Amino acid sequence: MVETQSDEILHNADTEDVSLLVVGDPFGCASIPATTHTDILLRARSLRIPTRIIHNASIMNAMGACGLQLYNFGQTVSLVFFTDTWKPDSFYDRIKENVSLGMHTLVLLDIKVKEQSEENLARGRKIYEPPRYINTLAIALSRVGGGPENERIVAEKFGEPLHSLVIAGKRLHHLEVDYAEAFAIDRENWRRVAKEVYGCALE
Amino acid sequence: MVETQSDEILHNADTEDVSLLVVGDPFGCASIPATTHTDILLRARSLRIPTRIIHNASIMNAMGACGLQLYNFGQTVSLVFFTDTWKPDSFYDRIKENVSLGMHTLVLLDIKVKEQSEENLARGRKIYEPPRYINTLAIALSRVGGGPENERIVAEKFGEPLHSLVIAGKRLHHLEVDYAEAFAIDRENWRRVAKEVYGCALE
Repeated sequence: MVETQSDEILHNADTEDVSLLVVGDPFGCASIPATTHTDILLRARSLRIPTRIIHNASIMNAMGACGLQLYNFGQTVSLVFFTDTWKPDSFYDRIKENVSLGMHTLVLLDIKVKEQSEENLARGRKIYEPPRYINTLAIALSRVGGGPENERIVAEKFGEPLHSLVIAGKRLHHLEVDYAEAFAIDRENWRRVAKEVYGCALE
Repeated sequence: MVETQSDEILHNADTEDVSLLVVGDPFGCASIPATTHTDILLRARSLRIPTRIIHNASIMNAMGACGLQLYNFGQTVSLVFFTDTWKPDSFYDRIKENVSLGMHTLVLLDIKVKEQSEENLARGRKIYEPPRYINTLAIALSRVGGGPENERIVAEKFGEPLHSLVIAGKRLHHLEVDYAEAFAIDRENWRRVAKEVYGCALE
């Protein structure tokens, strides 16, 4: 609604209290374009409607739970659903920029909730598509052909949404390695890569 | 206490519920080194004490209130008090990295609350220094010597703590300019610089 009916939301907001509830922080919301809330605040401002922002926890800081330090994260990246006509690949350059500076990247995986098909949108039919989440089955294949003692194949399904992904940068601190190790499927391998590839000073 | 008495905090935590309350998010707390909470969680883990993290709003996302998009921020930087023996200037390189990619920088300004002097710490005297905040008087001098019609000098005192600073990167979006304009002391100048120096497509 916020994207298509902001006039309705602001209707009468000069005389009554109107709240807009979001998931996460109003400015760090992954479910709608980041500019949507800025836009509605700008409209309110132009109509001289006073506004107040109440902040909340968000994936943009809660990602610290994975053990990587917030200070070592570069820009956050959104990975969006591709359509037939829209395949934005700028996420790759953004991640590359972070990687080049040794910084971690939070990758937010797109969701499509209460979306109309282009046809329904054009015809003004309030029929919504079933919710979709970037939540594919993923299979990581390591050292394939290296013999059964070396090969490792891990299939992962992440369960209910929401999901995000963190790519660790080279500026990895040994405390980050220690902390995040608890989440590693293969702890020994996690530490080995941190040591050998990332150059972390681990015991 | 959390930095010096974590053993005390964890004492009995295996048999009773112990909470550690912080300002902001547990992992995005500016008042203590970012590693302190990771460290106490690692100790709890090694003692097999179960832990649970409850996230909260933090300056690391609430900064979105200034109108710059969270997605356009690079790494967050801390600007700490210099001492006679410790003058870390790495913040400069970090800001430079963000600037080189056109990203905004959140600069967290150091605070010293409940700090002991080195002497009191060494002698085990629980005497604490008065709280200090990076909160200097700042005077911005622009076009000095350019004649009274061009010169502009702005003195600013930010009032009660806490404070942080945002440095805008070149990847500035016109909606960011529009939104943040409301906070500009000189709106006209704000838009002019966004247009001429940052190359923003403004009307």
